[in-house]
Amino acid sequence: MAHLISQRANSRRRLHFALFDTDDAPEGFEPHPDPLWLDAGMPNAGFFPIELLQVNVVDYPFQKSLLLPLGNISLENLNSSGSGVEDSLKRLTTTGESKNHVIIPKKSQDLKLIDLSRGLQYSEVEGIPQLLQFTRDLIKKAHPPKYEDWTTILSNGAGDGLNKAADAFLDPGDIILVEEFTFTPFLQNINNAGAIPVPLKLDLDSTPDKSNGLDIDYLINLLENWDQLQPEHTGKKPKALYTIASGQNPTGFTQSVKFRQRVYNLAEKYDFAIIEDDPYGYLTLPPFSSPDGLAKMTDFLTIEDFLENHLMPSYLTFDTSGRVLRIETFSKLFAPGLRLGFIVGHKDVIRAISNYANVVTRSSSGTSQLLVNNVIEQSFGGVEGWLKWVLKIRLAYINRRNVLLGGLYDLDAYKNGYFDIIDPRAGMFASVIVNFPEGTNVPDKMKLLQFKFRAIGVKVVTGLNMAIDKKFSEPRGNFFRLTYAVAASDHELREGAQRFSKAIYEFFQKGLKY
Amino acid sequence: MAHLISQRANSRRRLHFALFDTDDAPEGFEPHPDPLWLDAGMPNAGFFPIELLQVNVVDYPFQKSLLLPLGNISLENLNSSGSGVEDSLKRLTTTGESKNHVIIPKKSQDLKLIDLSRGLQYSEVEGIPQLLQFTRDLIKKAHPPKYEDWTTILSNGAGDGLNKAADAFLDPGDIILVEEFTFTPFLQNINNAGAIPVPLKLDLDSTPDKSNGLDIDYLINLLENWDQLQPEHTGKKPKALYTIASGQNPTGFTQSVKFRQRVYNLAEKYDFAIIEDDPYGYLTLPPFSSPDGLAKMTDFLTIEDFLENHLMPSYLTFDTSGRVLRIETFSKLFAPGLRLGFIVGHKDVIRAISNYANVVTRSSSGTSQLLVNNVIEQSFGGVEGWLKWVLKIRLAYINRRNVLLGGLYDLDAYKNGYFDIIDPRAGMFASVIVNFPEGTNVPDKMKLLQFKFRAIGVKVVTGLNMAIDKKFSEPRGNFFRLTYAVAASDHELREGAQRFSKAIYEFFQKGLKY
Repeated sequence: MAHLISQRANSRRRLHFALFDTDDAPEGFEPHPDPLWLDAGMPNAGFFPIELLQVNVVDYPFQKSLLLPLGNISLENLNSSGSGVEDSLKRLTTTGESKNHVIIPKKSQDLKLIDLSRGLQYSEVEGIPQLLQFTRDLIKKAHPPKYEDWTTILSNGAGDGLNKAADAFLDPGDIILVEEFTFTPFLQNINNAGAIPVPLKLDLDSTPDKSNGLDIDYLINLLENWDQLQPEHTGKKPKALYTIASGQNPTGFTQSVKFRQRVYNLAEKYDFAIIEDDPYGYLTLPPFSSPDGLAKMTDFLTIEDFLENHLMPSYLTFDTSGRVLRIETFSKLFAPGLRLGFIVGHKDVIRAISNYANVVTRSSSGTSQLLVNNVIEQSFGGVEGWLKWVLKIRLAYINRRNVLLGGLYDLDAYKNGYFDIIDPRAGMFASVIVNFPEGTNVPDKMKLLQFKFRAIGVKVVTGLNMAIDKKFSEPRGNFFRLTYAVAASDHELREGAQRFSKAIYEFFQKGLKY
Repeated sequence: MAHLISQRANSRRRLHFALFDTDDAPEGFEPHPDPLWLDAGMPNAGFFPIELLQVNVVDYPFQKSLLLPLGNISLENLNSSGSGVEDSLKRLTTTGESKNHVIIPKKSQDLKLIDLSRGLQYSEVEGIPQLLQFTRDLIKKAHPPKYEDWTTILSNGAGDGLNKAADAFLDPGDIILVEEFTFTPFLQNINNAGAIPVPLKLDLDSTPDKSNGLDIDYLINLLENWDQLQPEHTGKKPKALYTIASGQNPTGFTQSVKFRQRVYNLAEKYDFAIIEDDPYGYLTLPPFSSPDGLAKMTDFLTIEDFLENHLMPSYLTFDTSGRVLRIETFSKLFAPGLRLGFIVGHKDVIRAISNYANVVTRSSSGTSQLLVNNVIEQSFGGVEGWLKWVLKIRLAYINRRNVLLGGLYDLDAYKNGYFDIIDPRAGMFASVIVNFPEGTNVPDKMKLLQFKFRAIGVKVVTGLNMAIDKKFSEPRGNFFRLTYAVAASDHELREGAQRFSKAIYEFFQKGLKY
């Protein structure tokens, strides 16, 4: 792996003025077994103003809404089964053993917990050991790498993880391959490293299960004929590929297992790293089905079934040479305000990232670490409990996706063929591909449509805004990204679908005019 | 100010794919007053697993220890007044109005609080408005800048603040003046920006109240005769000065008001920025006095007295042109694990920092922001309440400093003249200057002494380890940095002083041998 690490990252060293240099010890030197600390400039935990933290944890998302007589928000259809809210709750809590009251004292004897004296103190840039262990246990269970020398490091969320990935691999002038539509803030990280993004064509065929997002024939051809196809980059070769393989942002596509293996083989053959950004992968989604009735309850999987038959394996699980760097986050499954995530990869790469963190970002928030760790350990119940929570989140997203897409499918704009929908197999985004007549000035009409959406009262993202090279992507830029993540209720999702459809319908009826 | 901002920082732009471009609106366009959000990829707060957070806040540091029959830790001498613990407690809580139970619900109507739906969500890179307002109110009260166009931005602690300061001012090849002994991790940030640190001589005269740390004659001479004295940097001029003006790390010196004015005038004359790193400034310390008896209680100041007569004014209070950037942190006065601080400066500089945060560090931890904001607002009582808390922390540090220094003064090593002590006017560090005989190989003997300390069981920092240029600083490198911040009790501090003194004593008695 070493040859893929950037020179910038490789040149960083860890030094600290408080380190004690034990070379050249005088004869007979024996360190005292219990030295007193007059060295570290850290306040004793007795200075912290907080004595105890208590956390009330819910059993399932939107728990409180479910108990309200109206607007059961996103899981409201569970109520329509006839069995009533209570039965649904029982089913959702599954074990009945969850502890909803997490107590975090200043000092705890429980080695799995991070107490306040630890979590509110300065801590390791790699992460506090308890939470770090959790991330490793989770990866071992959900995405076990094929080699031994892997490890994890905490990050301040996926955005920070991506910036660290860019720093770890990319030197000025290096090439990185990027899906043509992507999470564009990453471009600023590429730019900060002085590297050059080269877009990869996506296949936006919306036929269910057909597309993996990336157009692999395009990729193979590009790699095989690099010097001809990229004359301005002749002699260079891609150092890395950045991919959101599950629930791709913005398109919503998810790469199949076979497809991942093919891409990984290319990485081996052409010797590039894979930066796998996976904020959404645990939110696997079955194909769309109508959101009414009891059917949703059967979507509540066992952990074994989820891991074996639903969760798409990380690129880590194919990796034999340590070239995959996986970026995870707690933002989508716990809360974004934590600013907490983690990175998985080869020990050498993680060491480089750790050296960067030591200088630039420092440790992640200890407050967030103790909150996440202790809720997972004390309330959810470790890795298994965490995955149960993930399945509950997943169920809510399945329902939300179904409500939004159901709303779109039901209306005239779709029925008239004005647009197609990419039904996502993971994540929180569904893209709507607008079927403009041949010869339309698509960017102009997309822009005009945005005014229509805003007038009718729905906010969506223009696909072309997420292109890394608008010119390159213009022929495939005729889509909008819709999310069902933020809406407050099923009602809002249905209303959003109606407003969106109405805007498109009127626009087409008026001959693509406002 | 604009000319002092680095080109790198100036070139950053804020762009986001979800922004709606309102140019070229079609005729008759009226945005909907209440649009539905199908755009932002953020989970609804109903997905967060936490319903309620409860925080038990103490009235004063080491509160629990004070109630224990033994080891009242650092404030234990309060107990020796004869009036008993209870009276001391009453005095310390001052108002009796503090609310020790902070409750943070998912949704709150109190506009001063950050509720969970806000604090655990994605938030502004500048900081969540409530806490940001607090930082501005605090600066207005404690360190009001002389000009109008200043503002604040949150950081992930002082280390992050310093890195952002380096990015904001320093381009590759730029010169930054740095106190010769300093918080050396900042050198890595300077290095990351490609800039060059030039050391400034310190005056280590330990006579109380005499020294301000910086040797101003050296500084003036250096600035006046730059090209001659810095032939390798001819034609360049310093872009910035980095200074820890209060409780300097490692020496413990604090610059007087007059001295700050002189330094600021030099910044105006020679047109450089001042990066003021101030983690310790609120912890002002009176001269050493023996730590016994009731005397300590009288050190508990009113806020007015503290602000007028004790707190050293920030460089901000002299600043007329917006060239001062002040770095604060909640680490020393609340808790380091928060990874939370803030930066104060001219709006243009803060905007540059905000653009950097937007790409690299992203937002600070919302968990930490809601904890700090709500404890301050709900329990302490806003800026006034915060300053009361600071005064309690200060009282504990005064006592600790007195216990440590008292311990050192009392023993033979000091009485024999083997070392002098810099009695600090602020902060958490006291430096011990070892009086080696003329002609001693100081670095060698300092290293040997470290083995002695480790054998006898006390950890201290070698001053020369904190030099930015060991060769330059060798003549002044004969000191150790001791801190009274981390010890668990007065007993530990006394024991630490004994072990330290014993090591020095034996070392000198043996003719500077182990």
